[in-house]
Amino acid sequence: MNINGTPYRTIWLADDGRTVEIIDQTKLPHLFETVALTSMDDAARAIRDMLVRGAPLIGATAAYGMALAMREDPSDGNLSAAYDALFETRPTAVNLRWGLDAQRTFLAPLAPEARAEAAYRRAAEIADADVAICSAIGDNGLMLIRHLWEGKPDKGRLNVLTHCNAGWLATVDWGTATAPIYKAHDAGIPIHVWVDETRPRNQGFNLTAFELAQHGVPHTCIVDNAGGHLMQHGEVDLCIVGTDRTTANGDVCNKIGTYLKALAAQDNGVPFYVALPSPTIDWTLHDGIRDIPIEQRAAAEVTHLWGATGDGDTATIRVIPEGSPVANHAFDVTPARLVTGLITERGVAAASRRGLATLFPELADRRRA
Amino acid sequence: MNINGTPYRTIWLADDGRTVEIIDQTKLPHLFETVALTSMDDAARAIRDMLVRGAPLIGATAAYGMALAMREDPSDGNLSAAYDALFETRPTAVNLRWGLDAQRTFLAPLAPEARAEAAYRRAAEIADADVAICSAIGDNGLMLIRHLWEGKPDKGRLNVLTHCNAGWLATVDWGTATAPIYKAHDAGIPIHVWVDETRPRNQGFNLTAFELAQHGVPHTCIVDNAGGHLMQHGEVDLCIVGTDRTTANGDVCNKIGTYLKALAAQDNGVPFYVALPSPTIDWTLHDGIRDIPIEQRAAAEVTHLWGATGDGDTATIRVIPEGSPVANHAFDVTPARLVTGLITERGVAAASRRGLATLFPELADRRRA
Repeated sequence: MNINGTPYRTIWLADDGRTVEIIDQTKLPHLFETVALTSMDDAARAIRDMLVRGAPLIGATAAYGMALAMREDPSDGNLSAAYDALFETRPTAVNLRWGLDAQRTFLAPLAPEARAEAAYRRAAEIADADVAICSAIGDNGLMLIRHLWEGKPDKGRLNVLTHCNAGWLATVDWGTATAPIYKAHDAGIPIHVWVDETRPRNQGFNLTAFELAQHGVPHTCIVDNAGGHLMQHGEVDLCIVGTDRTTANGDVCNKIGTYLKALAAQDNGVPFYVALPSPTIDWTLHDGIRDIPIEQRAAAEVTHLWGATGDGDTATIRVIPEGSPVANHAFDVTPARLVTGLITERGVAAASRRGLATLFPELADRRRA
Repeated sequence: MNINGTPYRTIWLADDGRTVEIIDQTKLPHLFETVALTSMDDAARAIRDMLVRGAPLIGATAAYGMALAMREDPSDGNLSAAYDALFETRPTAVNLRWGLDAQRTFLAPLAPEARAEAAYRRAAEIADADVAICSAIGDNGLMLIRHLWEGKPDKGRLNVLTHCNAGWLATVDWGTATAPIYKAHDAGIPIHVWVDETRPRNQGFNLTAFELAQHGVPHTCIVDNAGGHLMQHGEVDLCIVGTDRTTANGDVCNKIGTYLKALAAQDNGVPFYVALPSPTIDWTLHDGIRDIPIEQRAAAEVTHLWGATGDGDTATIRVIPEGSPVANHAFDVTPARLVTGLITERGVAAASRRGLATLFPELADRRRA
């Protein structure tokens, strides 16, 4: 999508055909800086220090990290060492493992001297595949949005509420929850997005507001507390959020606070959609609230906030009384009964075992066997 | 309640019998400073600049402001001028008008030379009456808490979730939502409070966490997004919040985000109580969502946050991309159907016309006539 009028992906190859470039997302929205990754260590650091984040982007960065490693030393020993080093950066990220496995399986049978070029090619395919998936999610979501908009008597502004950042910055391009939004905006539908702050890490303000602003999509920043009130007063036509993990029965594990918005949507008859690439479906889980362990993250995410000071610099401040205890659950689970539908790359499914099995029969069947 | 082991009210008379002292709440929780009010202008500034906030405390401060004015000049002209000056500080605050009316009605018939002493006496009565109301709310809420706690098979920690600050800092002492909590803590019930941040102004972290910590009540700070997850997992036994305005049918207008917590409470079978002094009931309103206009406050409350820096100072930072638009609705309305009960100074009522009329027949009848 566009940044200041120029189309970008979140990860790309420099003109030298070797250097991998990324956006340093830890500095957004206050500074826009790109970073050149010239070694496997650079790639590992970018993932570990969260210069890149979002499951698909982590997977693509790991795949490029393997390519950088093969350029340094294409031996079997380094193939294995690079896999381990990159895997350790964020061991719970499913796409990280997937990107690494894809590379290792592909590269291991090749002669060492062929590995570097092949690894770059495979990394590019992984990035392109993510773009294709997100674009397809966008097309499927666009149909929903167009339908809702055409049903509005005044054909006026269509208001979408989202939470956190399931945007193009979390993927290689388009995003998941934002893909339908960008497609609708580009198609001329007068879409407007309510952007939740998404405490504690503020990805809504830091990333979603930033990327919508840069692409020129009308939006308004609100605190996490405000969505229910807006829905009560008819100011939200549709919610679209992303998901970190979806169970086989359609329960959705996403950033903390998603569940509260889903409750408000149900209470006010607002459609609540979740956009997801099918690899985030965990076909082995059948009850999200019971089965998905929720990560507790560092207290500092709650106690401290980072932002811009008046003098063009940034600073971190503490916002709780010194010594007060903190809990920081990173995700919550929205039960399928509150989800109107799941927007996938194959189409829109009901948030149910049957809905998902209809779209992905081969995956649902495999697990049942 | 206690601050660092010493009992305090939020407003009190200094030893000289003339100077009025308050806590500068704009500096909490990072600095504890008391301020001496020696003139009507001081009192007006304290209200306008929000050194004092919370409806009951504003009312008491206005009443003391009238006393300070009468000490300066007890003439009819100054009685009227002081009324107007204090009223202009926060014209939408109902208790402000009530405190001023009470003083003017009481003082006007008196000879000017008798007014100063009488005004101090009346201000003290107004403060004491607020303490009595909050204490009674506490006693009535304590019964509920004791009942819930005794019903817990393990008699373990009783978890209460609150939102914003309906604490003793918003009143003269005890608070409204916190009164039952303090009474339960003082009675030896092992109570623990989940304290919501309450963006945008962060009164949960700045004030509620501060006052609970100072009084020694176990608590944990969480972001506004976390309450639903905690309720899903049985970590909340009870919600108690305050209210700015309650309709005759039991709808509750409180700080933005209250409605989302009430939805989660209902979805998980958690009792959701609202604590209120009866003067906050507006017997003329019968549909809170339709009839209560919601104030939109300054964007800066959303875009900027204030906190402590590492060097013992404080700073303000911007947390949204420059130029992104902002909406800042200050309150939302929780419909009566989501409210388990209203804890008042007379007892606990069902959140309904009949429930309120049973406790306050003379008020309900007057409006019906």
